[in-house]
Order: sequence, then C-alpha cells, then structure tokens
Amino acid sequence: MLRGLSRAGLGSIESNEQLIELAAKYGFQAVDVDALALVESHTVEGARELLKSRGLVIGSIGLPVEWRTTEEAFQEGLPKLTQAAQAAAALGCTSCCTYVLPSTDHSAAHFMALATRRLRTCAQILGAYGIRLGLEFVGPHHLRTRWANPFIWTLDETLDWIGAIGEPNVGLLFDAYHWYTNELTVADIEKLRAEQIVHVHINDAPDVPVAEVLDNGRVYPGEGVIDLAGFLQGLQRIGYTGAVAQEILTATPPTDAPDVLAQRSKAAFDKVWAAAGL
Amino acid sequence: MLRGLSRAGLGSIESNEQLIELAAKYGFQAVDVDALALVESHTVEGARELLKSRGLVIGSIGLPVEWRTTEEAFQEGLPKLTQAAQAAAALGCTSCCTYVLPSTDHSAAHFMALATRRLRTCAQILGAYGIRLGLEFVGPHHLRTRWANPFIWTLDETLDWIGAIGEPNVGLLFDAYHWYTNELTVADIEKLRAEQIVHVHINDAPDVPVAEVLDNGRVYPGEGVIDLAGFLQGLQRIGYTGAVAQEILTATPPTDAPDVLAQRSKAAFDKVWAAAGL
Amino acid sequence: MLRGLSRAGLGSIESNEQLIELAAKYGFQAVDVDALALVESHTVEGARELLKSRGLVIGSIGLPVEWRTTEEAFQEGLPKLTQAAQAAAALGCTSCCTYVLPSTDHSAAHFMALATRRLRTCAQILGAYGIRLGLEFVGPHHLRTRWANPFIWTLDETLDWIGAIGEPNVGLLFDAYHWYTNELTVADIEKLRAEQIVHVHINDAPDVPVAEVLDNGRVYPGEGVIDLAGFLQGLQRIGYTGAVAQEILTATPPTDAPDVLAQRSKAAFDKVWAAAGL
Amino acid sequence: MLRGLSRAGLGSIESNEQLIELAAKYGFQAVDVDALALVESHTVEGARELLKSRGLVIGSIGLPVEWRTTEEAFQEGLPKLTQAAQAAAALGCTSCCTYVLPSTDHSAAHFMALATRRLRTCAQILGAYGIRLGLEFVGPHHLRTRWANPFIWTLDETLDWIGAIGEPNVGLLFDAYHWYTNELTVADIEKLRAEQIVHVHINDAPDVPVAEVLDNGRVYPGEGVIDLAGFLQGLQRIGYTGAVAQEILTATPPTDAPDVLAQRSKAAFDKVWAAAGL
Repeated sequence: MLRGLSRAGLGSIESNEQLIELAAKYGFQAVDVDALALVESHTVEGARELLKSRGLVIGSIGLPVEWRTTEEAFQEGLPKLTQAAQAAAALGCTSCCTYVLPSTDHSAAHFMALATRRLRTCAQILGAYGIRLGLEFVGPHHLRTRWANPFIWTLDETLDWIGAIGEPNVGLLFDAYHWYTNELTVADIEKLRAEQIVHVHINDAPDVPVAEVLDNGRVYPGEGVIDLAGFLQGLQRIGYTGAVAQEILTATPPTDAPDVLAQRSKAAFDKVWAAAGL
Repeated sequence: MLRGLSRAGLGSIESNEQLIELAAKYGFQAVDVDALALVESHTVEGARELLKSRGLVIGSIGLPVEWRTTEEAFQEGLPKLTQAAQAAAALGCTSCCTYVLPSTDHSAAHFMALATRRLRTCAQILGAYGIRLGLEFVGPHHLRTRWANPFIWTLDETLDWIGAIGEPNVGLLFDAYHWYTNELTVADIEKLRAEQIVHVHINDAPDVPVAEVLDNGRVYPGEGVIDLAGFLQGLQRIGYTGAVAQEILTATPPTDAPDVLAQRSKAAFDKVWAAAGL
Repeated sequence: MLRGLSRAGLGSIESNEQLIELAAKYGFQAVDVDALALVESHTVEGARELLKSRGLVIGSIGLPVEWRTTEEAFQEGLPKLTQAAQAAAALGCTSCCTYVLPSTDHSAAHFMALATRRLRTCAQILGAYGIRLGLEFVGPHHLRTRWANPFIWTLDETLDWIGAIGEPNVGLLFDAYHWYTNELTVADIEKLRAEQIVHVHINDAPDVPVAEVLDNGRVYPGEGVIDLAGFLQGLQRIGYTGAVAQEILTATPPTDAPDVLAQRSKAAFDKVWAAAGL
Repeated sequence: MLRGLSRAGLGSIESNEQLIELAAKYGFQAVDVDALALVESHTVEGARELLKSRGLVIGSIGLPVEWRTTEEAFQEGLPKLTQAAQAAAALGCTSCCTYVLPSTDHSAAHFMALATRRLRTCAQILGAYGIRLGLEFVGPHHLRTRWANPFIWTLDETLDWIGAIGEPNVGLLFDAYHWYTNELTVADIEKLRAEQIVHVHINDAPDVPVAEVLDNGRVYPGEGVIDLAGFLQGLQRIGYTGAVAQEILTATPPTDAPDVLAQRSKAAFDKVWAAAGL
C-alpha cells in the first residue's frame, strides 16, 4: 500500500506543486491532485517528470462532473471529464473518485435511477482511458437525516449500486471514517476482493459516541479511536496495494503551516503503519 | 392498433383456451396469455395453429420473475424466464410486461438499485429472444402511500428508470388508468415515440375525485370518465400499432358469465374505438 | 422526410454558412454541418437563430473520432466528441454518423472486437446528449477487396453488429448507393423499423454493371439507374421522417459554381420526390 | 492454487461420481464436473455433501450453450444455461468456461459480432448467479488454418475481445498449452491481474517444433517441454488462487484404467508443483 496525501488536512495548500513537494519531503508515495491542471501547467512530459523525480504517483483524481443536480449540469461536465481522464491516464493514474451523500432532497428512488445512469456514463468514459471509478459511501449519522430522504450509506448498499451501474471499472472508495461510522469490522473488509477497492482514505475519529461523529470532525490517523491497525491489516490481507490517502475534513481549516501539518501527517502514518505491522 | 383481451374483466376464465375462444368470438385481435403454458399444452405448432385459426396474436406475456423480494427468489425465476421467452418468441410475441408499485417497504434508493440490476438481467434475457420488456407505472394515489417509502409512479420517472436500466429493449406498458391517475394529457402521449411503448392497457375510472380512484375500482372502457378517445388518438398519432388490451381490475370478480362479460367488452371497445374515430 | 444537403456534390463550398445559405435558397430543410464549428463561430444562440431563420435543421454531424487505427488516436478524439455532441444537442441535432469500410488490413476478427468497443464508447457518450450513432455500411465491390481482409458490408451484418455494440442509440446510416450496390430491394427496406434508421444519404449510380460501380463515381439523384422512387417510398412506408441528405462522391470535384450545383441538386430532389409521389 | 482434475486424461470415466472419487483419492482439491447433472442426481444438499466429504470444490463448469452456429441453436441453449448456472452457484462454483477456435468458416468479422453479442448474453446470465465466464484462447498452429478464415488466438486479442464483450464477469481460461503454442513468457503472465483469470488448464507438450504441436497431442504435466514451473510461478506471483485443472487431450483415449491414470496425474502434479516450489 502506498502512503498518500490529499490537501485535506494540510491547511492552506496553495498549489498542486506545493502538495507534491510536501508529499515528497515527508516520504509519501502518492498524492491526490488534479491531473488535468498538472498537465496544463507542465505538459504531460513535464508533469510525468515532476512526479517521477519526487517518487510519487497520483493516488486518485476527483470526478469533475456534477451528477447530483440537473441534466444540463451533468452534460456540461462531460467534456471536462474526457480531458481529465486523458490527463490522468497520461500520468499513469487509474483512479477517479466521487462521494455519495447519504440523504437527498430528491425523491430517493428517482435520484437513484438518474445517478445510476449518470455515473454509468462517467464510468464508461473513464473506462475508455483505463481508469476506474470509485464510489465513497458516507457514514456519519447526522448526514443520513441532513436532507429530506434517506439515500444509501452502507457498504452493502454501495456494492449493490455498483452492480446496478454494471460497468467493469466501478468500485469502492473505502474510507476509514465511513467504515467506522457504519460500525463495520475487519471481517467486513476481508469479505471484499482487492479489485473491488479503487482508492482508500485514512483519518481518525474523536472519542465520542459513534452516532455523534461529525463528517467534518476528523483527526489525524492514530490520534483518535478508529482501529486503523485492523483497517490496514484487513486491506493488506485481501491484497490491496493501492494508495491510502489521508483526508482530514474539519469544520475550520487547521491554522498551522502546511509543512508542520505534513510533518504531523508523516508521524501519524508512521504510527498507524507500525501498529499494523506494515 | 389491435383490440386485446386479458383475463382481467372476464370473470372466472378457466383456461387460456377459453380466453382465446372468447376473444375470437367477439372480434378481438390479441390476447394476453401465458405463452409457455400454451406451448406446453399444444406444442409450438399446435399453439401457433390455434392462434392463427382464431385470428389472434399474443399481446404480451407477464414477466415470470420475482424481482421485488430476495435475490434467491429472483435467481429462481430466471430459468422460467428463458423458457417463457423462448415460447413467446416461437409464437411471435415480442412483449413481456411487469408493473411497478409506487411505494415500497424497502429503502427506496436501495430497492431502485436492486431492481435496476434485476430488470436489466430480465431485459437481457428477453432481448436474446427478440422480446421487449414493458414497465407499467402505477398511478392511483392510495398506492403511493400504501407502503412505507415512496418509489416512482410518474411517466417521466419511469422513462428515467428505463434510461438507467440501459437496455435497448425496455419500454413502457402504458395503461389508461395510470395515465389518468397521473393527470397526464394527450400532449404527454404525443411527446412519446411509438417505439417507447411496449404494450397498452385500457380500462376506465369511475366519476370520483382522481385522488380517490382505487387501483381495483376499474370499469369497462367508455363506462367511466377517462378521455379514452383522446388516449387512443394520441397513441394512433405517434404511430403505435400494437395491442391495446383490456384490463379491468376490481375488488371482487364480476359474477356474470365470461361470455356476457366478453360481449360487454366488445361493446366497450366498439364505443371507444368509434369515439376515437379509429 | 426532410430534403437535406451535405457538402459532397456542391463543389468548393467554403464554409458552413455558405452551405446553409445555399440549402435555404433552394428549399432544402436539413444540412449536414459541423455543429461544433457553428457554435464556436456563432455561439449556441447565434447558431440556433441562423438555422431557424433559414428554416433548416442539422441532419447529422460526422463522428469526430478516429476509431479505425490506434488506441491512442481513439482516446484523443473523445474530448472532441463530447464537445461536438454537446454542440449538436444544443442545436437540436440528434444524429451522428460514421462509415464502415468493407475491408481492412487488420485481422478482421480482432478489428471487429476493437471497433465494437470503441463505437460503443462513442455511442455511450452521444447517448448522454440524446444523440444517436448511425453506422453506414458501404457496398461498392471494389472496396470489398481494396484492403487485405474482408470486413462487413451488408445490411444484415451491420444490424448484427449494432446488436453486438448493444447500446439503445445505435442504428443505420442508410445510403441509396450502398442499398443499390448490395442489390437490396424495397422489401428489404420494408423489413426495417423506422427507428433503426438514424440518417439517410441519397445519390445515384451510373449505368454500369453493379459490380463495377465505384464508390466515388456517384451522380445526382435521378440522373442514374437506382430505383430512388422505390427507395424513398420504402422509407416513407416504414415511417421514416428524418433527413435524406444528398452525398455525391466523385473522383474529381465538380467544377461548376456551388450555386449552380445546388440548383441542380434541387432539380434532382424535385424529380425523385415527384417520382416517389412524396 | 487448487490442484484440479477434469475427465480429459483419465480414460473412460463413467460418471461424475467416479471422477470425484478419483480426485479425492489422489489428493486433488477441485474437479471440473457438470454441476447440473450432480444436482439432478443428488439434490443440492446431497451434491454439496458429496463434494464437501471428499474435500473438493468444482473448478469450473462448461458453457452449455451453442454460441458458434445458428441463432436458433443459441437461443435453445439459454434455458439450460440458467439451470446450470443456478446449480453451479448452489454448489459454490463461480466459473464457467468455453473455448475459442482460432479459425472459422464464417466471415471472421461477422462471426466476431455475433459471438460478441451471444457471449455477452451468456455472461449476463452467469453474472446473475455470481458466476464468471472464462474464454480460452487456443494456440496450436494447425487450428489457425483449419477453417477458412483466421479468427483470434492470442492472449492480447482475447483480452481485447473481453473488452468488447464489456461485462464485468468475463475473463480468461488460461491454458498452459495455449500459452506455450503462442510462445508467451512468464513475463506475459505477470502483466495480468489475478482477477482476469477465471480458470486454468495444465498439461504438457511433446518435444516437437512449436508450430507442429497438435491440439490433441498433449501429455501429462512434467512429461513434456513446457516450462510449467514458470507457468505456475507466474500465476502464483500475480495472486491467482483458483483451480489449475489437468486437461490432457489426445488423439485416442488412453487405455489404462482411470485409477492408474489418476495416480499418474497425481505424480505429474507432484512433480510440477515441486518444480515451481509451491
């Protein structure tokens, strides 16, 4: 598994380049950056060289398509998606992810039908470039009732949805926070096959009742109560070898300097990696 | 368009053969019968000859798969579906239909995901035999709240669902009753293309407020308040040429003899066909 | 059916705008133009207004994707396809076409596998914008042996291929020249359903043995030996209501002025339309 | 990886039960048997118990559908396929395989289109039961010209075809004989992901020039010239954990008693397993 960084948790990162430098400086192996922006700033060759020289790969790009609102907004995003997929593929990245909110103001059934079609189209475009689409189920309880109608938030529902989408290149973005807030176990991870997992997020939860855990109340790996050793061991055991990217969502951005936060992230990874015996 | 009969509305029909005889006797051109049962009783050749000699085609078969409950029940139905599809195709029938209840005790979003995958599989099997799958949206208000969670019941939602299923051979079973209880207009029919309609049901509604119309409170065509002339004209205008099958669902079965009820059905069709200028 | 013009047969047309003016001047109802170029020159609103003021719709756009050579070339075309599809949809065009050469220097089976996947991806992208993909089978005998291995050139093979592609929005570009060089009949047209036809090309063939007809030896409708009255009547009978676009491919471009050639095209359409009783 | 036996190479095996007994007696862990027949003779519970008591799983079932000839023959096989899939799933088998002949008397491109659609349908049905479809590319040179037109026989072509079929549950049946006759290397195996392999066949080739190796001239593992140690190590390295089933096709059946041949098979497996360090 590759130690990965995203911007979430590093404070006011000003550029992809800064994220890349910090990731390299603190021994990370993967970064979640905008591949298209990188290619536009550096050319394909330049971006490849930049990543290679820092010993980094791209863990995942974000899905640049608005699939949750109007058909018009959805259609407008597809040209960008083809460009982003082409850029990601050119840089060797094979993962693109989006998250799934656990409630919705739409009719839940109708929204599921629309979203199934739209995400299938996204997967088909990504598939043309050898990229997989990862769907992140979102567990915190408060979001399940945040909008009018419950949507889906469990692992099993998400796997069923992936079946409904029906494309070979769709899988999970597996986030430790949602694994925890769904009260899943290591055994649940071990029921998965490695190829069902497109990308992994790691972070930790404060010591409050699980039903009160807030989505933007995350802490650094090893600073909370999630069994991250078990989480990582489970992933290891099923043969997952991709990126495990830190994503610390907080109500207010941390005020420490990015370098300090990246150093803290390294310490966090060292701790949980060691705890997992990796 | 072909005048069609189903068992619903003819009282205690005892066999496919009886339905066929009554349909022929009263000038109908299509019957909704169980093609597989017909083939099993008569052989393919015998069943073809029976239908041909009575001047009848099969309007549609019902989908013999339980797609609404467990995965096990779903899987158990597929061998039967392949047999039914093969029998229907052998008898020249190209339509297979199922109805969609407007509410559900399942999580609506999760059930939509499961049902999308299951009906796609059904469509794929039917497609191997050149048969289309028609989905019937169900409009009566009382059913929208009959189970815990709203599912879908409108024309537009159903078209979106057909898009999510994503197979070329899925379309609508368009029922006058659900057109009426959704308060759709002739203009809504005219926005459709004929090939989006797999099968049509005809029947009428009593003169009560539309929100109080009961699914099993149907009357014979022309005996109620639905604008069936407009309904038929709309279908005619977009070029629909398939079967229009009577389906009279009632709380208690009619007690008249099937022959009397078939005669009454003929009169009903004569009336609305004339009103539509067909 | 809509009388349509493409550039092929009008000599040195210098712009989409010139084609549009000539089409309008000579009473055509559809033009095959590059929707994306039109939108880029005029904005969506401007292009809509231009077409509307001339009483024209776009018959079809060409598929801007290289699906016949390398995977890299294929992938490079997809961003352009999303843009072209978005532009076409914004202008009300629902058709995009490509032609299929009847022989290939690739292994025929392997190329069929690659082309099936690639055209499916194209169809999926087009489908996201409500656009259909039309495949033009190409009949002239000399092209069947022009490259090392026979590919496909018949109507039935093309329909089977459409089945293999398996998307709901793929159909035929039906060209009178290929209907003729395949020695198909009006009855063959009548076996089709209108919705299987995405677009139509019209042109005529010189009076030489059918096996000697050259792909770029076409003449104006009514100036050759193809039964264009039967062709149009067949299309009319099955309910085809889309564009019928002239496409005159010749070994050397005609030297007459575009205005003269457009006038000649009008006369040609008048003649065959009259012969068909349209 | 599981040591597996099929009937091919064991002489006149008279029943599934006999194959099961021999496999158990000689320490095999998997058998390629007809799951449906087993269920029909023993009931699901009985067949499960039989396999379990002998320490065996089913490696793969054969695809009981004629996808190479007429549409009618294809359609006739689908009811059987649903039953076979249901039986296999009930017995815990998740693999179903078919072989692909490297030449054909059909038009190669047209046959590829037909076969793509038909095998997609098979995959869709199998997928409904959680079963994967493995396609076996066939390498021996003499078969490449045995019928009029070359079809496909290489690993890369087969992977491209799997992409054209486009279902998530289609992969390779990887046979050591076809790996050898295609002159592939261990590095070619290592480029695969384990989940691309549905099933594996093992056998050996006599010491003749590779272009003269006959499909039905196979010998027991370790008795020929194929680098089976490298073959198995490559599979091991990419994480393949499924069955490796012996399949010895010969011009005339071996005359030794099945028990003798099964014992010889055990010795063959012991030898190559040891050589591979497994």
